[in-house]
Amino acid sequence: MSENRALTRRALLVGVGAAGGAGAMFAAMGALGLAPDSQEKSFVPPQPSDFSLSGRAAAKVVILGGGVAGLTCAYELGKAGYDCTILEAADRVGGRNLTLRGGDRLAEMGGETQTAGFEEGTYFNAGPGRIAPWMVTMDYCRELGVPIETFVNNNASAYVYTQGMTAPIRSRTARADLYGYVAELLAKATNAGALNRRLTKDDRERLSEFLRRFGDLGPDLGYHGSTRRGFETYPGVADGVPIAGPSSLRAVLAAGTGRAITNDFGYDQATPMFQPVGGMDSIVTALVKAVGRDRIRTSTRVTGVKNLPDGVEVTHQGGTFKADYCIATLPPHLFARLPHNLGAPVTAALRTPAPVAAGKIGLEYGRRWWEIDDRIYGGITETDLDITHIWYPSYGYHSRSGLLVGYYNSDENAELYGKLPHAGRRSRALTQGKKIHGEKYRSELRSSLSIAWQRQPYIEGGWTTWPSYQGAFTLLQRPAGRVYFAGDWLTHLIAWQAGALESARRAVTDLHSRVLQATS
Amino acid sequence: MSENRALTRRALLVGVGAAGGAGAMFAAMGALGLAPDSQEKSFVPPQPSDFSLSGRAAAKVVILGGGVAGLTCAYELGKAGYDCTILEAADRVGGRNLTLRGGDRLAEMGGETQTAGFEEGTYFNAGPGRIAPWMVTMDYCRELGVPIETFVNNNASAYVYTQGMTAPIRSRTARADLYGYVAELLAKATNAGALNRRLTKDDRERLSEFLRRFGDLGPDLGYHGSTRRGFETYPGVADGVPIAGPSSLRAVLAAGTGRAITNDFGYDQATPMFQPVGGMDSIVTALVKAVGRDRIRTSTRVTGVKNLPDGVEVTHQGGTFKADYCIATLPPHLFARLPHNLGAPVTAALRTPAPVAAGKIGLEYGRRWWEIDDRIYGGITETDLDITHIWYPSYGYHSRSGLLVGYYNSDENAELYGKLPHAGRRSRALTQGKKIHGEKYRSELRSSLSIAWQRQPYIEGGWTTWPSYQGAFTLLQRPAGRVYFAGDWLTHLIAWQAGALESARRAVTDLHSRVLQATS
Repeated sequence: MSENRALTRRALLVGVGAAGGAGAMFAAMGALGLAPDSQEKSFVPPQPSDFSLSGRAAAKVVILGGGVAGLTCAYELGKAGYDCTILEAADRVGGRNLTLRGGDRLAEMGGETQTAGFEEGTYFNAGPGRIAPWMVTMDYCRELGVPIETFVNNNASAYVYTQGMTAPIRSRTARADLYGYVAELLAKATNAGALNRRLTKDDRERLSEFLRRFGDLGPDLGYHGSTRRGFETYPGVADGVPIAGPSSLRAVLAAGTGRAITNDFGYDQATPMFQPVGGMDSIVTALVKAVGRDRIRTSTRVTGVKNLPDGVEVTHQGGTFKADYCIATLPPHLFARLPHNLGAPVTAALRTPAPVAAGKIGLEYGRRWWEIDDRIYGGITETDLDITHIWYPSYGYHSRSGLLVGYYNSDENAELYGKLPHAGRRSRALTQGKKIHGEKYRSELRSSLSIAWQRQPYIEGGWTTWPSYQGAFTLLQRPAGRVYFAGDWLTHLIAWQAGALESARRAVTDLHSRVLQATS
Repeated sequence: MSENRALTRRALLVGVGAAGGAGAMFAAMGALGLAPDSQEKSFVPPQPSDFSLSGRAAAKVVILGGGVAGLTCAYELGKAGYDCTILEAADRVGGRNLTLRGGDRLAEMGGETQTAGFEEGTYFNAGPGRIAPWMVTMDYCRELGVPIETFVNNNASAYVYTQGMTAPIRSRTARADLYGYVAELLAKATNAGALNRRLTKDDRERLSEFLRRFGDLGPDLGYHGSTRRGFETYPGVADGVPIAGPSSLRAVLAAGTGRAITNDFGYDQATPMFQPVGGMDSIVTALVKAVGRDRIRTSTRVTGVKNLPDGVEVTHQGGTFKADYCIATLPPHLFARLPHNLGAPVTAALRTPAPVAAGKIGLEYGRRWWEIDDRIYGGITETDLDITHIWYPSYGYHSRSGLLVGYYNSDENAELYGKLPHAGRRSRALTQGKKIHGEKYRSELRSSLSIAWQRQPYIEGGWTTWPSYQGAFTLLQRPAGRVYFAGDWLTHLIAWQAGALESARRAVTDLHSRVLQATS
């Protein structure tokens, strides 16, 4: 498998976005980027006074799915007094926002059930694990009082490993070498007059000054290594002893580290990122508390949805439930299988987004050897192996034990791992990680737990992809009769919790607006 | 003032280091950097069993200065039962490791005394504020049980502001544009055959692939902007609305943002960095507890140091103190002024390192507008103004109030601010910061406190610089009779707390080795 395919799916998705409509718009615009980069703050939650002014009353709403989208719908509608009920098929809420701790059980379609053997204080974010600061998820953390801390998404001390290498190198080394040679090549080309027609003398001087700094070039404009590459012994009383190198330009290019060192360039992955203290499910816990446990019915699988002239009727394992409106937040490929009377175009639209396999394994060690031996505190090692990444924990620094994410992959890699029983996944993940961290990666393992999202009941996928953001995507933004749809899959933030939140806000806004305008 | 001078002193120091002896070594070495980048773990703390084996006994040691170097000497020697006493001139310990909280008073040479008006929970690290993960400071935090958390040293959402700009831009925008144009220029030069003699076809293809990714180039190898620049409205239910731009290559080069976006490239500034939870002085508090309060005499200014045939005699305001050995950790320029019998070469050596002015201002606001309005969670805005940087707090996210560092400057900028009374410093800092953050930067200020390290009694400088690491530097690594020297100024980690720790370890090792070998 090529490095391109494996290193990061997210970066690829972002790349596709970049190549789309934005390019032409960028090209047509002239000024420096002076606009504030804040989320549009247009959402106004429904509030009781909306009704006193309009003479309407809050409606009864049934919400299908107790993931983040469903909980957020109930939370926001609840602010104005809507009578919301959440029907959740699983025996727990949160959906893909899933944090596993010691004693937790994880059942999988196919029959295997794992029990987490993690120590007290250890947790494993099996679903979303990080939040970009511009995301609305941050606003919910603030509003709900969920404390946040930094998620280290980029670590100069983490490794890069590609299959062409005899041993991993530090991210800082890979970056220094690629930047150094790129700067040298361009500085020398500039000096040789190759850019004289495009750039004035002043421009060329400014460019050279930048390149010297960017690549840490010598006075000859050559790249001869840099302290930025790291040290065998760091400076102290004595001067530092730098690591050997750099390799030749040819060897650096052949090592194929480019994708790894650009991994955090995207707007959704840029440093810093954040996580709730104590586990991502702190958000779920806070939403549940705000919504009220009594409004949530778990282990209640929906078996049918029907629009009636004056409401909706939802059938489930235990009977039927009638309401004025419905918000369906279950995955589209699962809704498509339900009996309903929303029409064939809706079924076809629900079948349009394709579920994507995604998986993670949590590997718990009794010693934080990545901190003690490798001086890696949080961050991600990037590989072109089928494990794609190794995530080091951004919490519990210096404590006794800790948990790595031994793979976080998607698509064919996730399918490959997902088909194995847990023991097989673990064995494969350890074999791969050992190439980077050596024998301790296997010998010091304490416990482990893996998830294959495509095998999680009532979810059956890590996320979905659309062939395009027209047609079906647009159709499902609108209600089908009295049934609204919501979820990250209905946004441009697929695979991000922020998508679920944004989509919930849109559904709530539309539904509330309709209720306020209803002619009795 | 040019951008080069102002943006960062630290980066400059690192750059000087890079241009030194390491370059030749790098160039002569061939392999990829495969060595582990860990600190040499050669330090073995003195222990009681050392004496039972050698038949010697622990000695009595007087330590001048209760900063981090002095406290660490007492801590490490104390492990083996040395009888240590610290004499500290100030009425507090910690030296430049200084965290200020509401109610704390800060007196300055020249007469002004400020009292911190900060709210409960707010602190201001007036001295060191961040720790790189490879530094020995991390080991002391682990050993002493000082909890750590991430210090955000690089934030794509923070601003870059140079005096040529009409308004600040986000760091992510500056980076995307510079990388985009650099990639375009080199990709096009490669494509035009400019590198055919140096690179094979395979090399050129690999380089082009990297450049497309590095710069987010279009299919024409041109840079036409990128989602990496940021958005006016980030993606959500609808697609994102990118900020306008990019400017022309010429305008991007003229904006002079190069230093800002390479600020974290050095080995000492790379992401991630760390800080003790609750303030940097948690390290001091833990050391004091381990050493024992009774071993520390504050408000005890030393007035003379004398080597005797069988020990040392230290005179101070309250009398004299005799011991077997002395470790002097006070700043070299202050020791040089003391009466002593260590000889003229020692005095000359102590006068060699030059103290450098350095200053910070803490600006407390009742609203964390940088988080709410600007989505900046920690990190640093880089400027070519005399304030150099604005640091946003990496703690207390989403709480009500918070404290910025409104300048952290050195040399002539720090002298300029240091000469002003606090009100003048504040006024100047607000005028500068307003260029980046607008009127709220002034109008929402709650309280403030500034430090000019060159005006701090018994310290008189932010750090020191050596003309070279030969001669005087080497001389003072050795004891002058029974007097040892220690401090960050005696290391290659000047201005870092890690330097004080490394130097203390060296002095302790040397002294203990001598005691073990002493012929009675």
